Amino acid sequence: MRGGKGSNKKITMKDIAELAGVTKTTISRYFNGGYIKKETKEKIAKIIKKYNYEPNTFARLNAKQSRMIGIIVPALDSIVGSRVLTGLERTFREKHYMPIIMNTNHESVLELKYIEKLKRLNVDGIVLSATEITDEHRKLLKKLDIPIVIYGQEYSDGISIVNDDYNAGVEIGEYIGRKKHKNVGFIAVDEKDVAIGVTRRNGVLDGLSHYKIMDVSIAIADFSYESAMVATKELLKYKKLDAIICSTDRQAHGVYKVIKERGLKMPEDVSVISFGGYEIDEIIEPRLSTIKFDSLNAGICAANTLIDLINKVEVRNVLYINYEFIEGESVR
Amino acid sequence: MRGGKGSNKKITMKDIAELAGVTKTTISRYFNGGYIKKETKEKIAKIIKKYNYEPNTFARLNAKQSRMIGIIVPALDSIVGSRVLTGLERTFREKHYMPIIMNTNHESVLELKYIEKLKRLNVDGIVLSATEITDEHRKLLKKLDIPIVIYGQEYSDGISIVNDDYNAGVEIGEYIGRKKHKNVGFIAVDEKDVAIGVTRRNGVLDGLSHYKIMDVSIAIADFSYESAMVATKELLKYKKLDAIICSTDRQAHGVYKVIKERGLKMPEDVSVISFGGYEIDEIIEPRLSTIKFDSLNAGICAANTLIDLINKVEVRNVLYINYEFIEGESVR
Repeated sequence: MRGGKGSNKKITMKDIAELAGVTKTTISRYFNGGYIKKETKEKIAKIIKKYNYEPNTFARLNAKQSRMIGIIVPALDSIVGSRVLTGLERTFREKHYMPIIMNTNHESVLELKYIEKLKRLNVDGIVLSATEITDEHRKLLKKLDIPIVIYGQEYSDGISIVNDDYNAGVEIGEYIGRKKHKNVGFIAVDEKDVAIGVTRRNGVLDGLSHYKIMDVSIAIADFSYESAMVATKELLKYKKLDAIICSTDRQAHGVYKVIKERGLKMPEDVSVISFGGYEIDEIIEPRLSTIKFDSLNAGICAANTLIDLINKVEVRNVLYINYEFIEGESVR
Repeated sequence: MRGGKGSNKKITMKDIAELAGVTKTTISRYFNGGYIKKETKEKIAKIIKKYNYEPNTFARLNAKQSRMIGIIVPALDSIVGSRVLTGLERTFREKHYMPIIMNTNHESVLELKYIEKLKRLNVDGIVLSATEITDEHRKLLKKLDIPIVIYGQEYSDGISIVNDDYNAGVEIGEYIGRKKHKNVGFIAVDEKDVAIGVTRRNGVLDGLSHYKIMDVSIAIADFSYESAMVATKELLKYKKLDAIICSTDRQAHGVYKVIKERGLKMPEDVSVISFGGYEIDEIIEPRLSTIKFDSLNAGICAANTLIDLINKVEVRNVLYINYEFIEGESVR
């Protein structure tokens, strides 16, 4: 260690390492948010404070943190998805990370490919907005050596952030039951999407069953407007329905289109209810009753969780995102 | 230069450089779509043609093709923007490129930062959906040595793909004039956005002037629903308006909200018209009259143009995207 003029002399990382009795690598880890034992951390912090040490830019550049974050999403035209993305991006940028986004277009194989690619691009961590968790996902995620947060699907072997789909579903189902509907149709999505296709759907069906509505007509659609129109026509083919529950607001808009085309009245002839809470729901007629998840906050939480993981801070395994029920005029 | 057997002999990149009197780097830039003076370019092209030069696969592989494409967008919650992105992404994926997306959240400084970053990530080319073209943009773009296509703003020194905003604006302005409106309000966006804030606006105002409507009340908003609501209230404060023209459908939805809140009738009290053509426009009441640009196709064209640039195929400097007028029931 170089001699000095007391506590104001300029010291180097090497000096700090010597003073703390650790290696230079440990000091480097300290500055780049890597894992260090708590007591070592405190010792280093004390020395830095005492000597007023400021790491120079070169040392920071030298570190392996790329400050890049990978975000993998299933779609870029989803209103809820873009709220989550907004929360994610804003948070990462505020904390000086640069997010790069890859879109899988709902192809779950691409999720795996993109995770590998992002790893090679040397991102500090990944947020995966997953459409499904396959065995291949589990295999890849297990051996992945950078932090990852799964959004949208529960992932028992890692960290995930999910909507409270079951309880939201129950609330919708019970609301429709309480309002004395009998012949209920439901536009569901494929079960591979566990969160929406299974958990949300089960919630809805359980909620309805609390009001003895057991015989629900179900049609499967994807997340598009057009596909919901097809599903609605299918549902209306067999039975007069007095309510249609949709898995997403975009589906509900497809239902509106078909119902209006047929000259049916909402909610007098058919009630419609959904999950989403788009801003447009306020100006369509009748105003759509819907469940709105706090998706902006979900994005913020997912980003903060990933940053915590990068910095070795402990996080919860699963975080459930809250929702609010927005009562419109689409249910009689 | 090696001796040869006339114009069919095999020459190397080094030979071409010597013949053209430039450095090997310039030749490399030529093959990788970087900026070269026009006359140098022509000289190189001539030599290549004369000697039938084909860059070999090894050189190509060795050259920096990463099969990654960077896409820089100003927002991820724009409906039109997501149509363009869908077209871009689909095309790149079909042609075995891997697109990575960066969102600037309308901060044009980030556009520059992200271009530099993408270059360092070694992408084969960039599509920039630009909010504005500043002097810094021009400076950076000029020295950029990978192909770039600008979407959404005209860029005279390079390749751009833009909506035919002027003519679309004229069509809207004339339509409102033809329908005998007198007191017209217009929700514009900042002039920094030349395509929408200047070209589209000028088209609208010129179209109106063809019907002697010169005194148009103008309020400035951004692209959000909330900001359009504020602008509408401002417009309605001073004058009874019989028509409000919006720069985008999202703004029109904000106008609808305010008009409905005030108990005014559309189109009897106020006509509303806009640019966008969102699918939701079909189910709001009254159905919104709007101009729909062929944005999916714009994305496809932009992707194909970039791929052509990467492969040294000649492309047009500016490509204008067509539109269709969708007549709803929001104009009396």
